[in-house]
Amino acid sequence: MTQPLRIGMIGYGFMGRAHTNGYKRVGDFFPELKYRPVLQAACARDSEKVKAFADQWGYASTETDWRKLVERKDIDAVDICVPNNLHKEIALACAANKKMILCEKPLSMTVAEGEEMCQAVEKAGVVNTVWYNYRRIPAVTLAKNLIDEGKLGRIFHYRANFLQDWTISSDLPQGGQGLWRLDAAAAGSGVTGDLLAHCIDTALWLNGSIADVNAMTETFIKERKHNLTGKVEKVGIDDACAFLCHFENGSLGLFESTRYARGHKALYTFEINGEKASIKWDLHDLHRLEFFNHGDEGQLRGWRSIHVTDGDHPYMGNWWVPGLQIGYEHSFVHHVADFLKSLESGTPCEPTFRSALETQKVCEAVLTSAKDRTWQKI
Amino acid sequence: MTQPLRIGMIGYGFMGRAHTNGYKRVGDFFPELKYRPVLQAACARDSEKVKAFADQWGYASTETDWRKLVERKDIDAVDICVPNNLHKEIALACAANKKMILCEKPLSMTVAEGEEMCQAVEKAGVVNTVWYNYRRIPAVTLAKNLIDEGKLGRIFHYRANFLQDWTISSDLPQGGQGLWRLDAAAAGSGVTGDLLAHCIDTALWLNGSIADVNAMTETFIKERKHNLTGKVEKVGIDDACAFLCHFENGSLGLFESTRYARGHKALYTFEINGEKASIKWDLHDLHRLEFFNHGDEGQLRGWRSIHVTDGDHPYMGNWWVPGLQIGYEHSFVHHVADFLKSLESGTPCEPTFRSALETQKVCEAVLTSAKDRTWQKI
Amino acid sequence: MTQPLRIGMIGYGFMGRAHTNGYKRVGDFFPELKYRPVLQAACARDSEKVKAFADQWGYASTETDWRKLVERKDIDAVDICVPNNLHKEIALACAANKKMILCEKPLSMTVAEGEEMCQAVEKAGVVNTVWYNYRRIPAVTLAKNLIDEGKLGRIFHYRANFLQDWTISSDLPQGGQGLWRLDAAAAGSGVTGDLLAHCIDTALWLNGSIADVNAMTETFIKERKHNLTGKVEKVGIDDACAFLCHFENGSLGLFESTRYARGHKALYTFEINGEKASIKWDLHDLHRLEFFNHGDEGQLRGWRSIHVTDGDHPYMGNWWVPGLQIGYEHSFVHHVADFLKSLESGTPCEPTFRSALETQKVCEAVLTSAKDRTWQKI
Amino acid sequence: MTQPLRIGMIGYGFMGRAHTNGYKRVGDFFPELKYRPVLQAACARDSEKVKAFADQWGYASTETDWRKLVERKDIDAVDICVPNNLHKEIALACAANKKMILCEKPLSMTVAEGEEMCQAVEKAGVVNTVWYNYRRIPAVTLAKNLIDEGKLGRIFHYRANFLQDWTISSDLPQGGQGLWRLDAAAAGSGVTGDLLAHCIDTALWLNGSIADVNAMTETFIKERKHNLTGKVEKVGIDDACAFLCHFENGSLGLFESTRYARGHKALYTFEINGEKASIKWDLHDLHRLEFFNHGDEGQLRGWRSIHVTDGDHPYMGNWWVPGLQIGYEHSFVHHVADFLKSLESGTPCEPTFRSALETQKVCEAVLTSAKDRTWQKI
Repeated sequence: MTQPLRIGMIGYGFMGRAHTNGYKRVGDFFPELKYRPVLQAACARDSEKVKAFADQWGYASTETDWRKLVERKDIDAVDICVPNNLHKEIALACAANKKMILCEKPLSMTVAEGEEMCQAVEKAGVVNTVWYNYRRIPAVTLAKNLIDEGKLGRIFHYRANFLQDWTISSDLPQGGQGLWRLDAAAAGSGVTGDLLAHCIDTALWLNGSIADVNAMTETFIKERKHNLTGKVEKVGIDDACAFLCHFENGSLGLFESTRYARGHKALYTFEINGEKASIKWDLHDLHRLEFFNHGDEGQLRGWRSIHVTDGDHPYMGNWWVPGLQIGYEHSFVHHVADFLKSLESGTPCEPTFRSALETQKVCEAVLTSAKDRTWQKI
Repeated sequence: MTQPLRIGMIGYGFMGRAHTNGYKRVGDFFPELKYRPVLQAACARDSEKVKAFADQWGYASTETDWRKLVERKDIDAVDICVPNNLHKEIALACAANKKMILCEKPLSMTVAEGEEMCQAVEKAGVVNTVWYNYRRIPAVTLAKNLIDEGKLGRIFHYRANFLQDWTISSDLPQGGQGLWRLDAAAAGSGVTGDLLAHCIDTALWLNGSIADVNAMTETFIKERKHNLTGKVEKVGIDDACAFLCHFENGSLGLFESTRYARGHKALYTFEINGEKASIKWDLHDLHRLEFFNHGDEGQLRGWRSIHVTDGDHPYMGNWWVPGLQIGYEHSFVHHVADFLKSLESGTPCEPTFRSALETQKVCEAVLTSAKDRTWQKI
Repeated sequence: MTQPLRIGMIGYGFMGRAHTNGYKRVGDFFPELKYRPVLQAACARDSEKVKAFADQWGYASTETDWRKLVERKDIDAVDICVPNNLHKEIALACAANKKMILCEKPLSMTVAEGEEMCQAVEKAGVVNTVWYNYRRIPAVTLAKNLIDEGKLGRIFHYRANFLQDWTISSDLPQGGQGLWRLDAAAAGSGVTGDLLAHCIDTALWLNGSIADVNAMTETFIKERKHNLTGKVEKVGIDDACAFLCHFENGSLGLFESTRYARGHKALYTFEINGEKASIKWDLHDLHRLEFFNHGDEGQLRGWRSIHVTDGDHPYMGNWWVPGLQIGYEHSFVHHVADFLKSLESGTPCEPTFRSALETQKVCEAVLTSAKDRTWQKI
Repeated sequence: MTQPLRIGMIGYGFMGRAHTNGYKRVGDFFPELKYRPVLQAACARDSEKVKAFADQWGYASTETDWRKLVERKDIDAVDICVPNNLHKEIALACAANKKMILCEKPLSMTVAEGEEMCQAVEKAGVVNTVWYNYRRIPAVTLAKNLIDEGKLGRIFHYRANFLQDWTISSDLPQGGQGLWRLDAAAAGSGVTGDLLAHCIDTALWLNGSIADVNAMTETFIKERKHNLTGKVEKVGIDDACAFLCHFENGSLGLFESTRYARGHKALYTFEINGEKASIKWDLHDLHRLEFFNHGDEGQLRGWRSIHVTDGDHPYMGNWWVPGLQIGYEHSFVHHVADFLKSLESGTPCEPTFRSALETQKVCEAVLTSAKDRTWQKI
């Protein structure tokens, strides 16, 4: 017998759709799970828009005040899918109301906020997770498995970047629906919290803690029209950010993110060089993992392009047949599946708030370093 | 107001899941459509298995006799998802019962069967389509658009292959659930009907009619244990097939398919060389289209790797944001969407039975050519 | 002490330069060889042009009549670098004068001519080789080694193509310097002798004899201005050719060549699928070999892109350091090196005339098959 | 009439061979040049080894004392191909003796040394150049041309790395023939002077001056046996180095180099993101340039893989035919060709000592920054 998990969704943007799709599909492809998400309520300030969203996706009811949603008795778990500046307040209310929380990344605007959120959920004992979805792309999970099995040996280098090109035009405004990521008041930071946070989460997961960082940031377009005020205003976010770092395991890290890399839509890549093997991955061809194994016969060594679509690859036994790729959205289905499994087993669903706070610490140190032009310890 | 389209699904294998997923997701991503599929009934001989399937996917009821399903008043459209040797009989019954038909490819075992099916649906006036899903992968649809716009100019060459490696082991048996594709009695042919049929459908769509063919086939493993009889029996299918052909437009064609190409899981590729431009596509990276434009400035000509994930790419405006790829299964969602649109507009949803019969003719000519070692006109 | 090998070069075109470069560089990079080529004489009908060529490249003398060159006492080896219709006559004269022969491919216009040439050199006992240079690209030689070591196991498929796009314009004339390859009188055939001959030579070397073939050819542009007559004349060559075949080892072959594949300059590729492993190679990235090893751990199987630049790769110990690629011209240096080695050891330098005659037989059967629309045995 | 340029070569290692090959081949492929290099003398301390080298490559004479070579009247130009710690002394002697100088990179051990060298050659008025050969790889030169034509527009990002993996084993000793690059006393630095210097030279050429840098370095293996002393000694070089920087044009730079990137033999890559277009290049496939043009029609934008082998590509008109790639060594032939051209025209052959000093300044600032953990102005 399956058991319902009644979801209250706050927000209906890009991420609202991606998460909802995860809830709706998990039962079809992971029928072995005990819990089944139920789309209980969707919430947003604009009553017409949230009704349209609920109709399209099948939410049973709507709210326009997130406090009401959080207080509803018929909600088991709240999905926080709103701009970063609202995460904390909603999360604290959820904790107070003993709701499970699935919070969109990054966890918070600041480390201080994040710490408050962690303490709240831990004190309340509510289940929590943060949507760093890229961990659950099968090729990335496979990378994790290889590292855990010791296939790479001592790690020397970790490099990652997340390159986009969608804000190059100076005509693009900032603020408001769809563009809040350009507004420092709503987003907290630019590419650091939006894109580098993904790179950092994966890195901490795959390669352990970061000891110190040294960063630079840049805002290429200094002023943009603000959608909320209608005026041309100073841009407060970082358009680009790069940093050097040392990991605790002695390896060197190099990270970069930008929205000004013409030709790259959403190119998140990472590469790890170990003594025995190296791996590479790239979001634009997310179903592949590149693997170089020094243990192979000398003349025949080469980077292997592994098409991660076999039944024995992570998560793939639940999908199609070898050679048939899945896409971006499936990472959210997998996150939901793992979340539901964690409810069965009573173990945390990583990354929890506490784990995601580590990413927040690195992000904050990066921004401080860029401002002060100094190395920052984490 | 949306209008329900009540689906009766016959079969629950790999394709049964893929089609069902298409029905379930189309409303979420194509909310503009008037019709909405309803999973009314699933049908298969094994009552337990079909119930499990119905439970997992949400079919409202089950049947174990397809004739009953076809006769049910509460079914609008029947999806034929069973081995090839049952297509004709079921299709004729559907026509007789005025059901719309969505038939898995290939249309039929023979041209004669296919012709009978075409006449039945045309006489009955029932809507019909065949699941040649690869037409609806956005990169493939984009290829079609480029050709229709004249961007390639006069066509010189068309080449396609579909390479797999899953039957190399001689321990693999033939026949029965999951392996009926190796049993000539159920499948009619081997790679020709299973894989080349896809290549041919796409080719006829993109490059027009084929005039004549010259083929060779091979069965590398001559005998396999048969799951239904338990005995080692002669293998009746073609393990590999290749053919030369002339298209009516004067271009040359080269096609190949095999299940013995070590290293390729489901590598369907095609390439078209025109006077002004060329295009290439590959199922293993289905979200990309390679495009070479002779009109580009001389020094800067090169194959462009187009990441087909933008809002103005075919179908992609209904999915995520640029750079985020979709997968194999989405081709079925698109087929369903187009089918539903065709109901609104009253136009056929290609390929219809009649169009799919053209592919059948080429397949049959290919097999005859291989047997007789002669060129065969279509 | 090194020993001179006095070369007489007939012809000064593209191949004349490539061979001469081979002679000049072999001593620098293969200092272990006993023989050293000496550029004794260059020969061509146009006295000014041959003098310019000799000056540029360092030939000690010139001739305008190839018969004189062949009769000179101070010439040890003659390099036949002229259009195909002159190969036989010169080769017979060389044999009569006991000169070693390095003949440009294809060996001859017809099998009958080739047989006559073989008998002449064998009767005279003169050393002979044909410049099928692609065998000596390190990645191709590595492929040969892998096959000989049994790494691929039973072979199922061999496919090769050679795609160009330089004759698409109908303004291009035929005949004369630089364009004799479009003139059937000089070339014998079009892509079959020019390009497919390379593919066939490699295939016979890597995969053994071909049993039978079935081909089609096409001449897309039917008439072109002829440079020698100044008139528009019928084009007698094949612009494109494709064929199916069976190898004696039971594998299936698929070959194609064209000069109408927009976007491909000189894309010679081959792929071999074996039971245990597969390999792929491509002239546009000639320093790489793609290798898929089924013996690799299941989850980690993938095509390896081997960068063939290590000291233990064929020929590469004589060049630079790992990671630094060599180019097209080096295949000729290697051919010269192997030719000189063969003089030391007294063994034939493959392909000899006799071996190259096998390629000629396949080419002729291909052209006959295309004309008669029948399968042809070799 | 060609005019001889008599070369005196000091050193006979990897670079001695690469330069010599450049001198020997330039006349064959660039016959239009007035000057022709003559291999007048080779010099090294070991008389037997230098004789063997001279014999192999065709130097007319040998010396064992570089001072003698520099003083010889029959030498026009001296090629300094010895470890970095000897560059200055030899260069000053050359200037004193009015010899032209072709000096291997990096220019010097320190900026102070380099400044002294610049002043010496400028005061003496002797022609000078430094072998930053990668500028002359056709794809890299094409990149330069595109930038100069304004095809990229405003530049936002420059990133480069040079990744190797040949020193991972702790068994590898330092010092002496072939391994002096691991010995700080001979090399001055590790990857910074050896590999990053290349990246910096290209960057300054393509993207202009660097304003400031922030670096980190690492020595993964702290002690290695020293070949000259026979003892285990501290390793003084940087095994890896990465740095952030600002270019004067406002773009951000990210550079990295290491000899611990398993799977990369000599992977020098750079990427430049401009407002209108981006380019990428990679030494492992050096005959290709990747180009993304935002001006292309929206649906058809994609990275173009330009196979830089056409007659209108830089330098390529002097080599083979389209599609046939050249290799690493050709960059030296091009450098020689440009050097000889510069003698004809009386213009400097870039990079001169003075230009190469700019790279030296960045290298020194990088090492200082890594030591002091601060931003350094150039």
